[in-house]
Amino acid sequence: MLSIKRLSSASENFAATLRQLLAFDASQDESIERATADILRQVQEHGDTALLDYTHRFDRVQAESVAALEIPKSEWQAALNGLPADQRAALEAAAERVRTYHEHQRTQSWSYTEADGTVLGQKITPLDRVGLYVPGGKAAYPSSVLMNAIPAKVAGVAEVVMVTPTPGGVRNPIVLAAAAIAGVDRAWAIGGAQAVGALAYGTQSIAAVDKIVGPGNAYVAAAKRRVFGTVGIDMIAGPSEILIIADGTTPAHWVAMDLFSQAEHDELAQSILLCPDAQYLDEVEREINRLLPSMPRADIIRTSLTNRGALILVKDIDEACAIANDIAPEHLEISTENAHAVAENIRHAGAIFMGRFSSESLGDYCAGPNHVLPTSRTARFSSPLGVYDFQKRSSLIQVSHQGAQTLGKIAATLAYGEGLQAHAASAEYRLDAANT
Amino acid sequence: MLSIKRLSSASENFAATLRQLLAFDASQDESIERATADILRQVQEHGDTALLDYTHRFDRVQAESVAALEIPKSEWQAALNGLPADQRAALEAAAERVRTYHEHQRTQSWSYTEADGTVLGQKITPLDRVGLYVPGGKAAYPSSVLMNAIPAKVAGVAEVVMVTPTPGGVRNPIVLAAAAIAGVDRAWAIGGAQAVGALAYGTQSIAAVDKIVGPGNAYVAAAKRRVFGTVGIDMIAGPSEILIIADGTTPAHWVAMDLFSQAEHDELAQSILLCPDAQYLDEVEREINRLLPSMPRADIIRTSLTNRGALILVKDIDEACAIANDIAPEHLEISTENAHAVAENIRHAGAIFMGRFSSESLGDYCAGPNHVLPTSRTARFSSPLGVYDFQKRSSLIQVSHQGAQTLGKIAATLAYGEGLQAHAASAEYRLDAANT
Repeated sequence: MLSIKRLSSASENFAATLRQLLAFDASQDESIERATADILRQVQEHGDTALLDYTHRFDRVQAESVAALEIPKSEWQAALNGLPADQRAALEAAAERVRTYHEHQRTQSWSYTEADGTVLGQKITPLDRVGLYVPGGKAAYPSSVLMNAIPAKVAGVAEVVMVTPTPGGVRNPIVLAAAAIAGVDRAWAIGGAQAVGALAYGTQSIAAVDKIVGPGNAYVAAAKRRVFGTVGIDMIAGPSEILIIADGTTPAHWVAMDLFSQAEHDELAQSILLCPDAQYLDEVEREINRLLPSMPRADIIRTSLTNRGALILVKDIDEACAIANDIAPEHLEISTENAHAVAENIRHAGAIFMGRFSSESLGDYCAGPNHVLPTSRTARFSSPLGVYDFQKRSSLIQVSHQGAQTLGKIAATLAYGEGLQAHAASAEYRLDAANT
Repeated sequence: MLSIKRLSSASENFAATLRQLLAFDASQDESIERATADILRQVQEHGDTALLDYTHRFDRVQAESVAALEIPKSEWQAALNGLPADQRAALEAAAERVRTYHEHQRTQSWSYTEADGTVLGQKITPLDRVGLYVPGGKAAYPSSVLMNAIPAKVAGVAEVVMVTPTPGGVRNPIVLAAAAIAGVDRAWAIGGAQAVGALAYGTQSIAAVDKIVGPGNAYVAAAKRRVFGTVGIDMIAGPSEILIIADGTTPAHWVAMDLFSQAEHDELAQSILLCPDAQYLDEVEREINRLLPSMPRADIIRTSLTNRGALILVKDIDEACAIANDIAPEHLEISTENAHAVAENIRHAGAIFMGRFSSESLGDYCAGPNHVLPTSRTARFSSPLGVYDFQKRSSLIQVSHQGAQTLGKIAATLAYGEGLQAHAASAEYRLDAANT
């Protein structure tokens, strides 16, 4: 028997218990921090040589040059051609849907002209060059290649380069096929903090990028945090989470499996169910125990659900929404009747899945929206990865001769108030009175 | 005589010289890091008590409770009423223009329905609560209150709270007046890392916020970096920069004063002029020397221009644009004929000022666009502070019964490929074939 926590929002200490359940120690490991700092410094100072050295040491791949570590496009195409037909079709269909959704996120430059001829606006431009980190080994997810690369290409990024470690020289053909489908431009078989360093600082063979995205292990995360500022980075993700609000109308084994689909990611993943019906919670718990033995990743699921999962009895769906807003979950499934109306009450969530047919797994792969989502309550202030992460804005200011007469006086008054006389003079020089 | 560097893009070592000129050591001070970590820990553990203790120690303000440190709205209103008429009018005019510009940045939620009834979309919501840091003492800039608070209110943030240190108990009336005009909701006379900690973690008297914005000293910057993840933060700004592209048609003393207006901010500020006309560069240099003695902040300007400034001779305006894209300046003035056409070639800059009447100082105060801009080449991948920084997006996914039949097969195929069987089962449960 798996013992998943049963909580009730009516219990006296519920708020504290919930807070404890959500708590996650994101503190950084000092030895990883030091090792990462050293690797980055070596790559910054010695470029290709350091990169080759670390790749030999950590991935057991000996190459004479960084050029020899580039994975040629012919190899990606061969990988794509070698895929089983159903897998290729599924990847291509998923890519197409992700592309269509993200095209809705493209925004346009705008400007407006004021009565005195002054023009103000905002210019949108894509980043020049983006680096995509793809983990090697077991965590090499082709869906992650699609989700990271496609928004960048939709944004108009001219060059998307991929790095992926190949321990023992083993390259993952599905990842290469996904890169081909997603429109990645170049790829190198390098990984770890050394690959992050190469992308951030550039080496003799690899040009520096403007932003690095994609998941990675603790060294990769530490390296990304350290190079932030030199380049942009996406968020550093915490463990994955699902919160389900159910009214009891969805088959209980569907909901049990949805909880599993999050729990199977890793032992720290968090799966929580909110429901106003105690009998339904019993039923889901029975289904959890019935289905668990059949799961290939049963051990991970068991640990995750036992330590970080919960089935929570709530007063009603409104209270469930209030709790959801407090949790600000990465994934929120509203598995109820009239789910759309319930969703109106949700302010904070990475992705909102409405109705019993909207399982999170559909969103993970192919519904269209991005599966890179804010975790650990950061949905209170951050957003899914999107086209907007690969574009930036520049303010446009074209003050007319007449406009400078009005604005100059306002600016000068405020500048004198702040004790910035050069600011004031610069504005006043543009006044006609100063030029007669 | 002020000796500002004269460079030429034609010289052999130009690229390396430019790189050196731009280099800025952003390394963090270990003693500040440790002190900040300690302050944050104390505030997290002891809340109000720690906050009162540090406020007494650092600001020499002894208060019996945090409530006594709240600055009541009556005091803001009195400050506003007490302003000289021209200063109040200037602040109000600036606020109105900033508000109008930022209203153009508001974005709307969207969704679309597919043929099988599946609905996909993106929901935009404001952050619930934002904290605004306003430095005390000399660096207390009312314009900064407007630029940080107004976009948050335009975004729909329900509560914007301000914190500002008041060393010796001295409160800055112009800052309070600006808070009143900008629509700030509450304000406390606290500052430093302790105020950042209070906003991030919450105390008994101050509710935690979702994001902290606004400039501050090295302790404030270190604290913001450390609480990032618990809350959102704006960027950590480096020294301010201006790059001017001139064709020689703007009066030389205007351009000299524009360089000063950046240099007067602080010794590390960077002012660079690019021009294809050597005689014009001579003329600007003469104006610099002529005007410098009259500037109240002459010492700061001299240090800044000597150490970090440069007058650079370029081949032509096209080359100037290429150099500007490499520098990715915070502020770019295109002081040329047909500035709008020249701006077409600019890909990376925080704000682009076009034409001789568009001095940076107008943008700093009242043109409308935000004056919080990406520094230190980060305009390659980041944007001015804007309404979008106070909103976040949630993906919306409502898969229809029919849609689940198509998407379920694609998702299951990809999930099996990644070894995630619960994901596959969760998708397959929604297939009609599984429910007959």
